[in-house]
Amino acid sequence: MATDRVKMLVKASSRLVLAEHVEPQDDMRAERARASFASRNVAEALNGGKEVLEKRSRMVAQLEKLPWGQKSQRAFLSREQEYVQALRAAMGIWQLMQSGQLSIEDGLEMRNLLAFPGGLELHIGMFIPTILSQGNDEQQKHWLPLAQSLKVIGTYAQTELGHGTFVRGLETTATYDAESQQFIVHSPALSSTKWWPGGLGKTSTHIILMARLFINQKDYGLHAFVMQIRDLSTHLPLAGITVGDIGPKFGYNGVDNGYLIFDHAPIPRNAMLMRYAKVTPEGKYVPPPPANAKASYATMVYVRATIVEDAGWYLARAATIAVRYNAVRRQTAASAGDKELQVLDYQNTSATLLPLVAVAYALIFMGKSAMGMYKQFEKGRDKGDFSMLPELHVILSGMKAVSTWTAADGIEQCRRGCGGHGFSALSGLPNLFASYVQNVTWEGDNNVLCLQTARHLLKSCETATAGKAVHGSAAYLTASQQEKSGKCKVASAMDWRVTDVLVMALRHRAARLAFEGHDLLHKRGKGTLHFEGPAWNGMTVHLIRMARAHSQLVLLMTFAEAVQQAQVEPTARKVLEQLVALHGITTLLTELGDFLIDGHVTPSQARTLQEQQHELLVELRPEAVALVDGFGFEDYQLNSCLGRSDGNVYNALLQAAKSSPLNQTEEGPAWHSVLKSWLDPATRQEARSKL
Amino acid sequence: MATDRVKMLVKASSRLVLAEHVEPQDDMRAERARASFASRNVAEALNGGKEVLEKRSRMVAQLEKLPWGQKSQRAFLSREQEYVQALRAAMGIWQLMQSGQLSIEDGLEMRNLLAFPGGLELHIGMFIPTILSQGNDEQQKHWLPLAQSLKVIGTYAQTELGHGTFVRGLETTATYDAESQQFIVHSPALSSTKWWPGGLGKTSTHIILMARLFINQKDYGLHAFVMQIRDLSTHLPLAGITVGDIGPKFGYNGVDNGYLIFDHAPIPRNAMLMRYAKVTPEGKYVPPPPANAKASYATMVYVRATIVEDAGWYLARAATIAVRYNAVRRQTAASAGDKELQVLDYQNTSATLLPLVAVAYALIFMGKSAMGMYKQFEKGRDKGDFSMLPELHVILSGMKAVSTWTAADGIEQCRRGCGGHGFSALSGLPNLFASYVQNVTWEGDNNVLCLQTARHLLKSCETATAGKAVHGSAAYLTASQQEKSGKCKVASAMDWRVTDVLVMALRHRAARLAFEGHDLLHKRGKGTLHFEGPAWNGMTVHLIRMARAHSQLVLLMTFAEAVQQAQVEPTARKVLEQLVALHGITTLLTELGDFLIDGHVTPSQARTLQEQQHELLVELRPEAVALVDGFGFEDYQLNSCLGRSDGNVYNALLQAAKSSPLNQTEEGPAWHSVLKSWLDPATRQEARSKL
Repeated sequence: MATDRVKMLVKASSRLVLAEHVEPQDDMRAERARASFASRNVAEALNGGKEVLEKRSRMVAQLEKLPWGQKSQRAFLSREQEYVQALRAAMGIWQLMQSGQLSIEDGLEMRNLLAFPGGLELHIGMFIPTILSQGNDEQQKHWLPLAQSLKVIGTYAQTELGHGTFVRGLETTATYDAESQQFIVHSPALSSTKWWPGGLGKTSTHIILMARLFINQKDYGLHAFVMQIRDLSTHLPLAGITVGDIGPKFGYNGVDNGYLIFDHAPIPRNAMLMRYAKVTPEGKYVPPPPANAKASYATMVYVRATIVEDAGWYLARAATIAVRYNAVRRQTAASAGDKELQVLDYQNTSATLLPLVAVAYALIFMGKSAMGMYKQFEKGRDKGDFSMLPELHVILSGMKAVSTWTAADGIEQCRRGCGGHGFSALSGLPNLFASYVQNVTWEGDNNVLCLQTARHLLKSCETATAGKAVHGSAAYLTASQQEKSGKCKVASAMDWRVTDVLVMALRHRAARLAFEGHDLLHKRGKGTLHFEGPAWNGMTVHLIRMARAHSQLVLLMTFAEAVQQAQVEPTARKVLEQLVALHGITTLLTELGDFLIDGHVTPSQARTLQEQQHELLVELRPEAVALVDGFGFEDYQLNSCLGRSDGNVYNALLQAAKSSPLNQTEEGPAWHSVLKSWLDPATRQEARSKL
Repeated sequence: MATDRVKMLVKASSRLVLAEHVEPQDDMRAERARASFASRNVAEALNGGKEVLEKRSRMVAQLEKLPWGQKSQRAFLSREQEYVQALRAAMGIWQLMQSGQLSIEDGLEMRNLLAFPGGLELHIGMFIPTILSQGNDEQQKHWLPLAQSLKVIGTYAQTELGHGTFVRGLETTATYDAESQQFIVHSPALSSTKWWPGGLGKTSTHIILMARLFINQKDYGLHAFVMQIRDLSTHLPLAGITVGDIGPKFGYNGVDNGYLIFDHAPIPRNAMLMRYAKVTPEGKYVPPPPANAKASYATMVYVRATIVEDAGWYLARAATIAVRYNAVRRQTAASAGDKELQVLDYQNTSATLLPLVAVAYALIFMGKSAMGMYKQFEKGRDKGDFSMLPELHVILSGMKAVSTWTAADGIEQCRRGCGGHGFSALSGLPNLFASYVQNVTWEGDNNVLCLQTARHLLKSCETATAGKAVHGSAAYLTASQQEKSGKCKVASAMDWRVTDVLVMALRHRAARLAFEGHDLLHKRGKGTLHFEGPAWNGMTVHLIRMARAHSQLVLLMTFAEAVQQAQVEPTARKVLEQLVALHGITTLLTELGDFLIDGHVTPSQARTLQEQQHELLVELRPEAVALVDGFGFEDYQLNSCLGRSDGNVYNALLQAAKSSPLNQTEEGPAWHSVLKSWLDPATRQEARSKL
């Protein structure tokens, strides 16, 4: 124990050291006092109203009391623990819904708040919906009650070891045997092993099987079947089934993605989902009516709309964490005796984070707009009107790509923007990135989706070139025939804040790229447009850029319009308008090469563009914390030591670290087995010579 | 069991399905046959000769037989297992060295091959080197034998919860008590908790403590001390010490990064490393001679040279995995009956991967050059000549940033380029990224290092403006005074392959940015250059861009020169020259906005630049696999199911997945505890009502 004399000595040193110290909570309070608008007002507008936020708070309080609702140990779970606990939590919610304590809608909200993906994801997201959309009445009546009461758990088995994007290439076969009135399901090659389905590894008892249907040696292409793979009493695989978990992944490790090999596994004829296509007992194939293709297309479009919506919210989480931490994180004093500077006050920090805040807002509004369009399409569809589908497809394919690229890269930028602590799992950022980034790959690889949008744009160019009108988001391709030589009208730097100026530049570039792509493909196809083959495959860089340019244009226009219509106070709208300008300007700066090649923007205009971004960063700096507060997250949702609303980050890190499994004993797990024989003077020599 | 009749039926389906099937091993063989040069020749040149590669193969064979040398289970380890096993492996190598079975040099090579960072990293990398550089003779004589025989294990405790980059802001105090002739070490605030040191959590018995020295209430700034923190016989923390692990991180989880809080902990006076600064028994401070600052600077420069060298090799690993997998991965057939296309044949895939191969080569050569410069500096330093230090510093600060950004982002691009399987831990890519990406943050945050290079460039501009000569890599700032208005001389697309044309463009841009930065800082400082404070902090975006431009120029010049001097056959040199062009062109395309603002490159030249990149991608496509073979990695090093040299990727994935801990039982770990009560018909109702 230190004597009083020593304590006095040390106290004098401490006093000198702490003279420049600032408590992070004080910084956070000061930040909130600086903002010009009420963040709560924005949070209500973004989240659907005061009641939604209040209900959410109550639900968080409820979750925090439930044994499976705790999040404090998440970062420390082994993969096995993560799998079991995620499943237990999902079952907990299911139980609350079944017992009537929770509506289905509230159950979904609770799932979102819990954010603990596990073995039931595809049961909910694909197994039940596929039966609903492709099962006939009898099949729905049989399977839906079983699935809804979890008497069976299903997944969706489509992708294979060697086949993902190109579904026509799937190799698993379902061969009809008229004699036994069964399909025989078989994996003809290693590469046809089913691979990736979530919940397949150890959870699911049933699958929606996607397999190539063969009748009398004729290939009828992919069809869907419901198939049992595990015994309900023992959970052991049935005969002819080899099934298991595919191992750990970058993220999403609560989910038991699985593999599955079929060895002449029989299923009854009525296992085929027969709402559209049918196979008769004697083996006659009845093809689906033509509208069916459009209907299954609509499902993909819906999923992409949800991905776009989610992208903004995921990025918003990371931005909230990074902005809050960098508001209380201080680094480098100009001279001795000065306080260190808040890291958010370095231009490069705000130049990284504030545009990410802006694009998170843009994507959230874009997601709302996309979902609104989808709902409108649904109304038409129910009356047999599919006319909105092509436009939804062209917007959502490219936007799925742009939104997930932006969100994934943005989350990682936020993580890096938190310095060393951003590398700690306790920041919440590594898991946010590693779990989110799969979105650039699944549900249509981003590059492949861009090519789909590009195809539509090229067809629109063909229409425009023929002098006909183009409708929808690509309508500018008609007008642009006149606009092509248009020049940007920016005279002074402030002109860059005008939405129309930004839109015009993005439109000019999108049109230029589209027509260039059109001309190139035309030339390569010697007068006709081939949307596959060597000519197409050899220019995919340009095609992807075209789709990105189109999507960036749609995003800015949608953002600007949504801000004008948002239910917010004038002070908030003013700041949101600055965000629109910042987003547009940043997009132009990121793609500056394109605009200069266009000839639309001159080098001196480009310089003022940079200046104007810097101006906006300075103006928006005092609003930064309020802007991320405006997303309206609960601390429970962020589950981040750095992103805490109160700014008390260092205490949170230290308290959380104490739970690290390595700290269960003072000596740590390697002392007896590895270290002692080297370090302990009593046993060292002897022990080591035995190694 | 299926009857023979059924088997015949299924076989007919399989035959139809497999007609277009290609075995990945066959693709891989065909790829190797296409190349125009011998990859082994390049691998030898890059790795230091035939003998090095042969020795490496022998060492891999040795490692594969050692119990701690296995890598097949790495992806499945819990964090605790990873920590213990990494330490066991490190001890295994130490034991081989101590027993004379392995030279120190070979021990280091084995560490590289094993690639299993653990609790000894900072013992080797910082504890021993700091004692060597800052301990006096007596201290070295005492500590080095103990450290080298692992009777003590040390780490380097500098960073704190609230302090990383700005070392002057560290808060831990060491107050000298002349009466007891001890320093009293104390943590005056939560934010002064030591945080991050590798091996601190559960492994180290000793630390190099960096603390602010106080004598008689006077602050002498940071000094280094050797301090024991754990008892050698029990491994328990000593009095006044609270120490533990900081919890899991994005990657690097075999390392027990730790926290440490001091409560009036005493250490003897001779614990201070006194080679330079000293404290006498009566408490008189003897300052270090001025050369010491330069010497400790030199250590940082050395570490950065190793980081630059590593960057290329890490990126090369990812590129090897991605190129090999995309050479055997096939996706999408143009028409039924066609074989699916190798994914590397899609332009966007090669446009992503081949430039990454090119820049990996560039960085490997850059690393060799940097290390060569460092060695040359060392020779001078030993004679008291520090004149090379500023130039090394300006190159290596910016290059550390550019190389680690390039490698980290490139690894992630390679991962995404492998589609769904790139998300699997079995690809090796998630761990490669998550463990590598810390390099953008540690040993000088990249943004902060860029500011250091920028500072030097601005000073050089000042020199050039005064009409004096600038030496070293920034010499172009003098000449550029005349060159400023120079225009790019490219007339036809092929001109872009000329190294001088590319260098000229990069030089023009670097000079333009540097002088613009100079003028701006001048203006803001009203005639003087202030390298800190609001003027500086408010233009860091430009300053970072300046440093990046300079570093990109140095990288291209170094790459081009190294290829000319490389000991390779003419066929190989020709391909390497194409890589130099591809690297230069890609750099220009990535930063195209800058070149167009420059006015150095015209829009029509920019178009030919894009065309020329596409040409090179086509020409280099047949060389792709040979180029990654040219890095010379063993499969053991890559430890990737996708990166296998033989291309047998799908079998590797399936075999590896079978080891997943979730597959230990057929039912999986959630069956009894969670699933059975819902699914098992015998017990379902009853069990669930108890929930």
